[in-house]
Amino acid sequence: MREVYVLGVSMTPFGKFLNKSLQDLAYEPTWNAIRESNIDPHDIDIAFVGNTYAGLITGQESLRGQAVLREAGIVGIPIINVENACASGSTAFNLAFKAVASCQAELALAVGVEKLFCGDTAKSLKALSTSTDLDIEGHMGMLFAGIYSMRIRAYMEKYGISREQLAKVAVKNHDHGALNPHAQYRDRVSVEEVLNSRMIADPITLLMTCPLGDGAAVILVGTKEMALRMGKRPIKIGSSVLRSFDIARIHDQTIVERVSGRAYQEAEISAKDIQVAEVHDAAAPIELYLYEALGFCGAGEGGRMIDDRQTWFDGKLPVNTSGGLTAKGHPAGATGLAQLTEIVWQMRSEAGDRQIKPLPNVGLAENGGGNIAGETAVVAVHILKG
Amino acid sequence: MREVYVLGVSMTPFGKFLNKSLQDLAYEPTWNAIRESNIDPHDIDIAFVGNTYAGLITGQESLRGQAVLREAGIVGIPIINVENACASGSTAFNLAFKAVASCQAELALAVGVEKLFCGDTAKSLKALSTSTDLDIEGHMGMLFAGIYSMRIRAYMEKYGISREQLAKVAVKNHDHGALNPHAQYRDRVSVEEVLNSRMIADPITLLMTCPLGDGAAVILVGTKEMALRMGKRPIKIGSSVLRSFDIARIHDQTIVERVSGRAYQEAEISAKDIQVAEVHDAAAPIELYLYEALGFCGAGEGGRMIDDRQTWFDGKLPVNTSGGLTAKGHPAGATGLAQLTEIVWQMRSEAGDRQIKPLPNVGLAENGGGNIAGETAVVAVHILKG
Repeated sequence: MREVYVLGVSMTPFGKFLNKSLQDLAYEPTWNAIRESNIDPHDIDIAFVGNTYAGLITGQESLRGQAVLREAGIVGIPIINVENACASGSTAFNLAFKAVASCQAELALAVGVEKLFCGDTAKSLKALSTSTDLDIEGHMGMLFAGIYSMRIRAYMEKYGISREQLAKVAVKNHDHGALNPHAQYRDRVSVEEVLNSRMIADPITLLMTCPLGDGAAVILVGTKEMALRMGKRPIKIGSSVLRSFDIARIHDQTIVERVSGRAYQEAEISAKDIQVAEVHDAAAPIELYLYEALGFCGAGEGGRMIDDRQTWFDGKLPVNTSGGLTAKGHPAGATGLAQLTEIVWQMRSEAGDRQIKPLPNVGLAENGGGNIAGETAVVAVHILKG
Repeated sequence: MREVYVLGVSMTPFGKFLNKSLQDLAYEPTWNAIRESNIDPHDIDIAFVGNTYAGLITGQESLRGQAVLREAGIVGIPIINVENACASGSTAFNLAFKAVASCQAELALAVGVEKLFCGDTAKSLKALSTSTDLDIEGHMGMLFAGIYSMRIRAYMEKYGISREQLAKVAVKNHDHGALNPHAQYRDRVSVEEVLNSRMIADPITLLMTCPLGDGAAVILVGTKEMALRMGKRPIKIGSSVLRSFDIARIHDQTIVERVSGRAYQEAEISAKDIQVAEVHDAAAPIELYLYEALGFCGAGEGGRMIDDRQTWFDGKLPVNTSGGLTAKGHPAGATGLAQLTEIVWQMRSEAGDRQIKPLPNVGLAENGGGNIAGETAVVAVHILKG
């Protein structure tokens, strides 16, 4: 497998854009990523397009990538439409990486795009329920807030985690969001505000949840030579691991541990080497056991990490400097690529007011998708090296 | 790129199975293909699952493969959900081929599954309309029969093709379907019956169209060593080419010519070497210009090929011995893999009453998908070698 590098990265701000189509959303970041990559768009060998819900929201099923990229003038090449629930963007990136790593392509495009706002919240929520096995969770009316609340309660009981500690994660991520012009929520919140906001699924309150969102994120990947030609810091893809759920567990450590363990092995590093991370905080408190599952701390030490402000953007191991799903937002198909975009910006010193110092050399993105039989259905972990 | 071989192949009969779920449909061919391959299912490295319309028919979006393969016990590996309109099955096969060719995987599973019958034909037809760009054909109410009728009329005028010649293709494919226990339609029809059946979109009559259908087809691909261990004739994948539409043309020769040209080049053969073919006769008359586009005859000679019975199963170059989409049926996501299954059966002398003689050594499958701006949106061409 040859070395693969990240070239241009770009994303829209995440938010509510009722007047923008999927095409509108994807157009600008696609061309920004092309321009930043300093490549001829005719040299793109293949495109992977991740989208999760368009079939159920806009009605565009089955040829989403062709419809989206037609507007941007990307035609004539293989376009592979992929979906893997909220990990659809990472799935596109994983395939783009593998296409270049295995010399099937020199230059591959990964696009993630989503519209969740459609003027009908019930329709949007119904679409979200399809990121389960409809025969199990889906038809039980078990939505994500319910699934996460059960996991978080089990975690709280096991390790004596307090509601304040859960709230602190939301405070941190909203703090980061306030520094990120691409974030959907840009207001700081206090622990009290988080705890006093409307209860959604005990112990998850409104300010701990991620919003519905529209948006797109785009990354080009290519060879080392292309990365050197860009004139920016070359960022190498150290590992790209994606797996589906295995056996049912109420706690999703199994799959995240398994996937991240493999990713560390492939990148020839350990969890201790990670200097910046974006993780899948679809409900903010989930971050605490993701710290453990990713090896950032020992069992039950997630609460201490947030108490000690270790994962704030000026802490020892900044996590979700973008604001995470909680504050940056979560247009499902775009999320995985937006996480990677944030890591690249941090590693290239392009993260503005939330730039971490010193410049990180190793970053991780963890993207989860859906739920089947009590376990996260898909997890993707990517490690980038500066 | 190392050599890649087809291992086990299996498909359900195509038809109307209101009581079967996507899981039910995929289960049996998945295990049949595993058994035929003589492999341990735990050795499957990756699965690609093609489905086109479940989001709009059964409501299962975003994790279709995980939901489908859970039932068959295939968990824990990367599962990539792909769609490319009616070429979704070929897209899954193309990625499975590339995964093994590039040594990312030793053993890859390609699944195509579709339920189009749901007790509500309007819902099924509306789903089909999403295999266009909704902003162009989709919202114009332009369904496939309309798109094909325009293409066929242009072709008839250009080359003086008669309605009888169009009907003969349907007669041939229904004749083949009558010999195929997996076909949805098993009745022979005459030229008169075809021409006198209800007009759908002039000149396309009912008996020239393909039906709605439910079904699944599954293929395992692996290394030469695995193929030799199977104890059946080893079938090598000579080429696997997939491309999306380029510039708008009312006639879809451009993309089929381009993709098949590339496929012949990669397989180091010419069109003259093809001994059996399955082509995308979503409306039977389309076959005539596919003969040209694939290089089976010169410009305008499609009519003569059918008059001379060259493409009957006992002719010089049998086409759609399975009955094609017209008679075998067309459960969209399953079609590409079912075409390849037929070619493998013909090459392994397992095609029963429709077995062609002598045993073919080189076969081709052409699978088209959707329509954007007047052109077929996706075309995949695979060449298999005995």
